[in-house]
Amino acid sequence: MNPKQIIKEIKEKQEEIRSVIFVGCGASKAELYPAKYFLENNSKNLRVSHYTANEFNYGTIASLDKTAIVISASLGGSTPETVQANAKAKEYGAHVISLTRAENSALTKDADYVICHRFAESYGAKLEKMGYALELAVEILEQYEGYKDYEDAQVAFSKIYDLADSAAKSAIADARKFAEAYKNDSMIYLMSSGATAEVAYSTSICLMMEMQWINSGSFHSGEFFHGPFEIVDKDVPFILLMNEGSTRPMDARALTFLKRFEAKTTVVDALDYGLSSVIPKTVIDYFNPMLITAVFRVYAEELSYARQHPLTKRRYMWKLEY
Amino acid sequence: MNPKQIIKEIKEKQEEIRSVIFVGCGASKAELYPAKYFLENNSKNLRVSHYTANEFNYGTIASLDKTAIVISASLGGSTPETVQANAKAKEYGAHVISLTRAENSALTKDADYVICHRFAESYGAKLEKMGYALELAVEILEQYEGYKDYEDAQVAFSKIYDLADSAAKSAIADARKFAEAYKNDSMIYLMSSGATAEVAYSTSICLMMEMQWINSGSFHSGEFFHGPFEIVDKDVPFILLMNEGSTRPMDARALTFLKRFEAKTTVVDALDYGLSSVIPKTVIDYFNPMLITAVFRVYAEELSYARQHPLTKRRYMWKLEY
Repeated sequence: MNPKQIIKEIKEKQEEIRSVIFVGCGASKAELYPAKYFLENNSKNLRVSHYTANEFNYGTIASLDKTAIVISASLGGSTPETVQANAKAKEYGAHVISLTRAENSALTKDADYVICHRFAESYGAKLEKMGYALELAVEILEQYEGYKDYEDAQVAFSKIYDLADSAAKSAIADARKFAEAYKNDSMIYLMSSGATAEVAYSTSICLMMEMQWINSGSFHSGEFFHGPFEIVDKDVPFILLMNEGSTRPMDARALTFLKRFEAKTTVVDALDYGLSSVIPKTVIDYFNPMLITAVFRVYAEELSYARQHPLTKRRYMWKLEY
Repeated sequence: MNPKQIIKEIKEKQEEIRSVIFVGCGASKAELYPAKYFLENNSKNLRVSHYTANEFNYGTIASLDKTAIVISASLGGSTPETVQANAKAKEYGAHVISLTRAENSALTKDADYVICHRFAESYGAKLEKMGYALELAVEILEQYEGYKDYEDAQVAFSKIYDLADSAAKSAIADARKFAEAYKNDSMIYLMSSGATAEVAYSTSICLMMEMQWINSGSFHSGEFFHGPFEIVDKDVPFILLMNEGSTRPMDARALTFLKRFEAKTTVVDALDYGLSSVIPKTVIDYFNPMLITAVFRVYAEELSYARQHPLTKRRYMWKLEY
C-alpha cells in the first residue's frame, strides 16, 4: 500500500489520532526527522515525537495507545531496538507503520503496514526512506487536519528524486576538491538547520565517525553562536549544509561568521543544485534534506577514496556481539 | 508568582491548552530539556515542542495561538533570538512564561509571567532555571490532565537542591583526577540518555567548546551503537553521564562497551551521589539532570584550573558583534 492508502485505512479504523511517534536508530532515526519536523510545525493538534528506539522502549510514553501512529524505520529491518519498539507499540494498541528495504525482516513482524524502499540502486533510491516518511506525515496532516499545500507537496514528491539524483551526479568535481582538502583532517564539524538539522547529525555520527573514523560533532546553525563558535579557528574544519527556505538566514549568519574568521569551510547549498527551480516555495523547507543527503553522499564517497578508507569498513559493527 | 500560581492563573484564562513550547539558545535551551522530556513522556494530550529560538522565529509554528504556553529562558535575559521569540509568541496570543536571572531585562518585556532564578550563589542555585522549568511542566500536567506522582515530585523538588549542592562539594577529589587525566586532550565526547541527554549536549557545546576551546561531540547513549562507537579506541576520551532510573540500561550498555575496549572513560553517575536515597523512584528519571549538572560543574572548574584556561575566557562572545 502507498502512504495515502495506509493513512486512509488507519482513519477508517480510528477516527481520532492524537499522537504520531517516529522511532529509529542512528541514520534511520535521522531520516525520520524531516517528517517529524514537517508534522510538528504544521499540525495544530497532533502530538509529534521522535525517539531513538531504546529511549522509546525504556521510557514512559503515556500517549501510547490506539490513538497513536508509530512510524519506525530500519534499513535492514533487524535493528533489535527498533524491532522491540514495534512490539511495544503493538502491545499498547498503536498503529504501526514500518519502513525497511528488507521484506519479511524482523521489523515487519509487529508492523500493521510495511513500506519497502529501495536503497543501493541510485542516489535517488537512497532517499526513499526519508521520502516515504515525509509522505506519511503529509498524508496524516491532510487526512486528519487538512493541509493547504498538499498539492504542492505532491508536485515536490514527483520531482525530488530525479533532482537529487542528477544533483549528486553533478557534484563529483566539487566533492573531489572537498576530499583532497579534508582528507588529512582528524576532526570535522557539521552544521545545518530546519528540516536538515539531523542530516548534519547523521553525517557526523555515521559518515564521519562510523564510516571514516574521523572525530566529529554536529549542532544546529541556530545554536552555533551559543557555544560552538568559540572553537572557530583557521585550522578547524566545518561543513555547512545550507537550506533554501525559511531557515536559510540562520545558515547564512553562521557562514558569514565562518568566512570572517577564515575557518576551513565547505558549503553544500541546496540553492546551487536548483531546489527552488523545481520544488514549490510553499513546501521547499521540507525537501532540502533529501537533496542535500544525495549530494553529500558523493562528498563522503570521494572522501573515502581520497583516504583509502571504504565507507563499508568497520572495526566493531557487524563483527562482534555488543 | 510561583509555578503553581502561574499555571493556575493561565488555566483561569484559558481552559483548553493544546501545546507547550520550550524555547531558548545554547545552555538555556538545554536546561529546558528535562521539563520537555517529562511533559512529552507523561502527557496524553499536550503537544510538546522544544526549539532553539531562531528555529521558532523563522519556522512555521501552526499551533501557536492562545491554546499554547511558551516557556522561554535566557540567563541574562538579553539573548536577541529568545527576546524575539517572546515577541512572536505574544503576537500569536500564546501565554508566555520566561525564566531569567535578570529582572526587567529585555526578555521580560513580552512575558506574561517571569520567574527570576538565582545563578552564581551556589551549585544548587545554578540549577534553578532547570528546576523551575520542570516545576512548570509538572504543574501543567497536574492542572490540565492530572499527575499521579505529583506529591512525589514535590518531595523531590524539596530535596534536590541541597542534594546537588552537597554532591558537587563532595566531587572535588574525583574532579581533580579527571582534570589531570584530560587536561591535554584535544577532543572529548559526551554521552547520556533520558532527561539528561541535553546535559551531555550542553556540556559538549558550552563547557568544552565554548569555555575550554576543546573539540567535542555529543550523542544519546542509545545512539552510541549506531555510528559513534566506531570511533572508540584507547586514546579517544569519553565522558558518560549516567542516570539512575528507566534509561540506566542504555548508559550501562555503552559503559560496558567502553570498558571492554579500554577507552579513556570518565563516568559521572547519579547513583554514586545518592539520588535514589532522597528522590522517590516514581520521579527519579527527571531529577538526574539537576544532580549531574551540579557535579559536572565541579569537573569543568577543575579542568579549567588544570588547563589554566578560565571558564569565563572567550575570543568572540561578548567581544564583538555577529
